[in-house]
Amino acid sequence: MEAHRSPVEAFALHSLTFHGGRLDEAATAFPDAPRPWLDLSTGINPFAWDGAVPPVDLRALPSVTALAGLERAAAAAFGVPDASVAVLPGTEIGLRLLGHLGLPAPFRYIAPGYRTHGEALARAMAISVEAIDEAAGQGGTLLLANPNNPDGRLLPLERLLALARRLGTRGGVLVVDEAFIEATPEASLLPHLRADDPVLVFRSFGKYFGLAGVRLGFACGAPTLVARMRALLGSWPVSATAIAVGTAAYRDSWWIDGMREGVAGAAAALDRVLASHALTPLGGCPLFRLVETDAAAVLFDRLARVGILTRPFEYNPRWLRFGLPGDAAALSRLNEALGHR
Amino acid sequence: MEAHRSPVEAFALHSLTFHGGRLDEAATAFPDAPRPWLDLSTGINPFAWDGAVPPVDLRALPSVTALAGLERAAAAAFGVPDASVAVLPGTEIGLRLLGHLGLPAPFRYIAPGYRTHGEALARAMAISVEAIDEAAGQGGTLLLANPNNPDGRLLPLERLLALARRLGTRGGVLVVDEAFIEATPEASLLPHLRADDPVLVFRSFGKYFGLAGVRLGFACGAPTLVARMRALLGSWPVSATAIAVGTAAYRDSWWIDGMREGVAGAAAALDRVLASHALTPLGGCPLFRLVETDAAAVLFDRLARVGILTRPFEYNPRWLRFGLPGDAAALSRLNEALGHR
Repeated sequence: MEAHRSPVEAFALHSLTFHGGRLDEAATAFPDAPRPWLDLSTGINPFAWDGAVPPVDLRALPSVTALAGLERAAAAAFGVPDASVAVLPGTEIGLRLLGHLGLPAPFRYIAPGYRTHGEALARAMAISVEAIDEAAGQGGTLLLANPNNPDGRLLPLERLLALARRLGTRGGVLVVDEAFIEATPEASLLPHLRADDPVLVFRSFGKYFGLAGVRLGFACGAPTLVARMRALLGSWPVSATAIAVGTAAYRDSWWIDGMREGVAGAAAALDRVLASHALTPLGGCPLFRLVETDAAAVLFDRLARVGILTRPFEYNPRWLRFGLPGDAAALSRLNEALGHR
Repeated sequence: MEAHRSPVEAFALHSLTFHGGRLDEAATAFPDAPRPWLDLSTGINPFAWDGAVPPVDLRALPSVTALAGLERAAAAAFGVPDASVAVLPGTEIGLRLLGHLGLPAPFRYIAPGYRTHGEALARAMAISVEAIDEAAGQGGTLLLANPNNPDGRLLPLERLLALARRLGTRGGVLVVDEAFIEATPEASLLPHLRADDPVLVFRSFGKYFGLAGVRLGFACGAPTLVARMRALLGSWPVSATAIAVGTAAYRDSWWIDGMREGVAGAAAALDRVLASHALTPLGGCPLFRLVETDAAAVLFDRLARVGILTRPFEYNPRWLRFGLPGDAAALSRLNEALGHR
């Protein structure tokens, strides 16, 4: 293999370790890679929802009625009352606005986790998952993802509810990022919350529905927190496209339910390919797998050179995250690329 | 005329006096009005940009390259360097985030003006336009629209620059909402700013391009403030649709330039119809006209009953704002409705 760039240099491609989905930067860093790239660097479902959407009128301001319809459809899909849902132009923006909701200090977030969590709250402290119960006893705001990203760890509902209520006795708030929960809906905290539980839950549209370009998400849970988020964003939080696509997609319970088997099957097929190359996931959820191996840097580099983008992590050079290949050709391309060791 | 609701009651339809574009609420309040409604309640250009847009892929996260392309296209259209533009999911959200940019207190905004200005900064004081020079001498943050909404008042460039620099000597910041500036681009402050001018300028995509459903806007000007806004919103501030449509539209300088005559002509035609009913605009800009008359409440009610929505103002019951009718039929419908006095 002609090595223009060492694996260490490849890892030094800083921005690729920040967020997934940066195909254009990968293409610049690996100009000789064959096109099109196969993007396995995100947890976005490759089997995108493609149901019917009524014609979208981009000319008018999105109406109050249309926005309320989206809130109703999403709330029904989440198993919560309509009023406890605030529409966001993507959960990324919602997370970044967390620091402006008047949440109680101190701020803590679980690491390793989703990168933005560490940036969402100023002067936030990273804690390990083992430290959450102790942290809850001290009040303040605790931010975590369930399932966690990138390792897919799911905390049991009872533990999360206990955490929230313990935080609540100290005036604290639990914030749960359920960006990847759709594939395991029974793990969602939302249907189990009481109105007085001090919990804010983020839901993402783009990941499970495979439509990240729509930029749509939700802040749900405690009515006062949801109302604050709504006030922060005003009357027109998302585009007419997001309202039309989101409303139709959340109403499509047949697709939502059926896709669970779809992603589970694709994840199992990915597991088989990984296993055949002696790569056993350390963790994951149906939308991605996290592999731990000394060869992570080498693998990232090798895959990138043949146009397959995976997700390395600057804080753990032994980790590599794989999203789901979207068809047999993609799976076999990955299999072949992994084979040339 | 059978009056189920008095003009006073019509004005009490509180939400219609809050923002324009609430057609669905109007339809509920005036259930017997003929459909479709003619919406003259906003300043959104009825001659929407309809140029070619490359196919939009809603599946992937919008790329860094695509976002940078939108920033370049918008910056070129605004006459500023690329780096001084932050992309917003609508200026409404940008304005609401103003209070979270660490701007200096005290906060002042000009009233009457755009409703959201009064909500954007906590504990902000409303001042009259006559008081701005004195206010600038006291530092802090001064927020105003140019042209102003609803009266269309344009402050001269020299005065705005002097205000900004006076504020600057006291550590203050000038925020200018140029939501309606496209129709009179020579009045934009942006090409005249120095990098060290403490000025943040908001630009709106949806109004002039007639595509408010896209939800796209920009914060421009002082690099540190623009960078703070960018950090607040993260890597994916707007949808793939907004990027594709916005980039293509801002590059369409032929349309942008030509539309200036288009809206000026439509505004002149509106003026003639208003004048023929003894309604002389108190002010306006090419995208709307503000009429002052004792009959404002009666007119709002009469027009709404025949399915024409205009914009009343809860703080001035003698004002009524008219957006541009989009064709001869709309103009003649308005003319006829105004005639039945």
